[in-house]
Amino acid sequence: MTLFSFDRQLRFGDCDPSGIAYFPSYLNILNGVVEEFWAAIGFPWSELIAVRKIGTPTVHLTCDFSRPSRFGDHLTFAPRIGKVGRASLHLAHVVSGADGVRWRARQILAATSLVDHHAIPWPDDVRAALLAHLRVDEEAEATL
Amino acid sequence: MTLFSFDRQLRFGDCDPSGIAYFPSYLNILNGVVEEFWAAIGFPWSELIAVRKIGTPTVHLTCDFSRPSRFGDHLTFAPRIGKVGRASLHLAHVVSGADGVRWRARQILAATSLVDHHAIPWPDDVRAALLAHLRVDEEAEATL
Amino acid sequence: MTLFSFDRQLRFGDCDPSGIAYFPSYLNILNGVVEEFWAAIGFPWSELIAVRKIGTPTVHLTCDFSRPSRFGDHLTFAPRIGKVGRASLHLAHVVSGADGVRWRARQILAATSLVDHHAIPWPDDVRAALLAHLRVDEEAEATL
Amino acid sequence: MTLFSFDRQLRFGDCDPSGIAYFPSYLNILNGVVEEFWAAIGFPWSELIAVRKIGTPTVHLTCDFSRPSRFGDHLTFAPRIGKVGRASLHLAHVVSGADGVRWRARQILAATSLVDHHAIPWPDDVRAALLAHLRVDEEAEATL
Repeated sequence: MTLFSFDRQLRFGDCDPSGIAYFPSYLNILNGVVEEFWAAIGFPWSELIAVRKIGTPTVHLTCDFSRPSRFGDHLTFAPRIGKVGRASLHLAHVVSGADGVRWRARQILAATSLVDHHAIPWPDDVRAALLAHLRVDEEAEATL
Repeated sequence: MTLFSFDRQLRFGDCDPSGIAYFPSYLNILNGVVEEFWAAIGFPWSELIAVRKIGTPTVHLTCDFSRPSRFGDHLTFAPRIGKVGRASLHLAHVVSGADGVRWRARQILAATSLVDHHAIPWPDDVRAALLAHLRVDEEAEATL
Repeated sequence: MTLFSFDRQLRFGDCDPSGIAYFPSYLNILNGVVEEFWAAIGFPWSELIAVRKIGTPTVHLTCDFSRPSRFGDHLTFAPRIGKVGRASLHLAHVVSGADGVRWRARQILAATSLVDHHAIPWPDDVRAALLAHLRVDEEAEATL
Repeated sequence: MTLFSFDRQLRFGDCDPSGIAYFPSYLNILNGVVEEFWAAIGFPWSELIAVRKIGTPTVHLTCDFSRPSRFGDHLTFAPRIGKVGRASLHLAHVVSGADGVRWRARQILAATSLVDHHAIPWPDDVRAALLAHLRVDEEAEATL
């Protein structure tokens, strides 16, 4: 397993009349990156949500947008696991363009039952995959 | 001038396959509420952005989603001015449904020139309108 | 019952870097108007979809965009029933701004079971409401 | 030059509470595919729109949605040039999943000046690139 990152060109439809990224569109892209991340660790949402009826709603989000992006810009999204809680997952996102960091986000996802939208602990196999990925992230950080 | 609030029913297209509000759509709605807020204090974005070439990009955002909303839910968005900086505006948002608070957000907007996307101080008339509204919010809070 | 129309100001987030309405956003708004229409005739989607498990997916859409709209423009959406089929609903939409028609659309919705996404006939009460509204539209047209 | 196609997995955020693709999101994806298409023929929108001030708004769109798509589905978008007009471009889109065609669209783009949003003829280099691509499409069709 390697550090997960996701390249995405900023599209026309992601931008607003001032010519830069519309921040709700940024978060729509981010959600797609998180969806890819789950697939990468072996638990695609189409299985997690549709088959196992486990939701992963975002319960907290902090974003700092430091530099604007224009449509056509090539961006790299790098989500890292910060912590695996009993029923939560803390992610730290860095989004970079050609000139360095454009924005950062911290996001907390909760594990919920889609039957009643209440919190549930991560199932053992999901938890194991998250923890394995967390170790990969930590080792990669240590060697930087 | 009175406390500004904005009612918005959550639409089908705002929700995701798990049946609750998709958080990027929540932020798209929030951005529309902020647009209404600017119009309410006398500076519609169509004038601010298109005529005066002043942008108000979001540079910071913190959201806490405490309870899910389903499509058809009636929501009230209540943005309050927390602080008017030299070149920034701090907003605190409370979004409520029938059963109380659904989510809260703190947002910092920067004043920028749309010519070069750099920060600029608020023009005097804009600043005066923001400060006048801040006083309304403070007085309303004091009487609660 | 009267002719149904829906006013909606075009928002910043509905527009693109060329400064005019982004057409997928137009269709997102249109879908919200159709949702309002169903509520107006007594069958809100929150009941139809969530309780009765009847979907109304769009199976055909034709749009003609004749004049651009800019953010801040006040638009009126006027959907009319063209035909009520056994398992379909034909709508004709006219979207107007201050200077007249901006765009038109013809849309066919199918009645489907949300269990298997197959076509089903409209239930009698839904059909009756659609036909009653169709008569209102026809009478209003006749008196124009 | 080869036949252009674009693969895109349907994301969670593209889908609605009935569990299938939300059609305005489909059109947002389609617009991104058209953006990729322009880049593929040598005229990325970031140059066409931002530098040369030429817009390509959609003036007509017809869609037929024949089968639903669920989130996680792998889709292939295949746009073909139908006709290159003096100031227009006709595209025919076929969108397929594992079980065949999911939906089709015909789209007409107009060449416009972004200064006044009026129609203009395609510049010679743009027209030459579109015609070259049209020949590639026709030859590929002929050999099928």
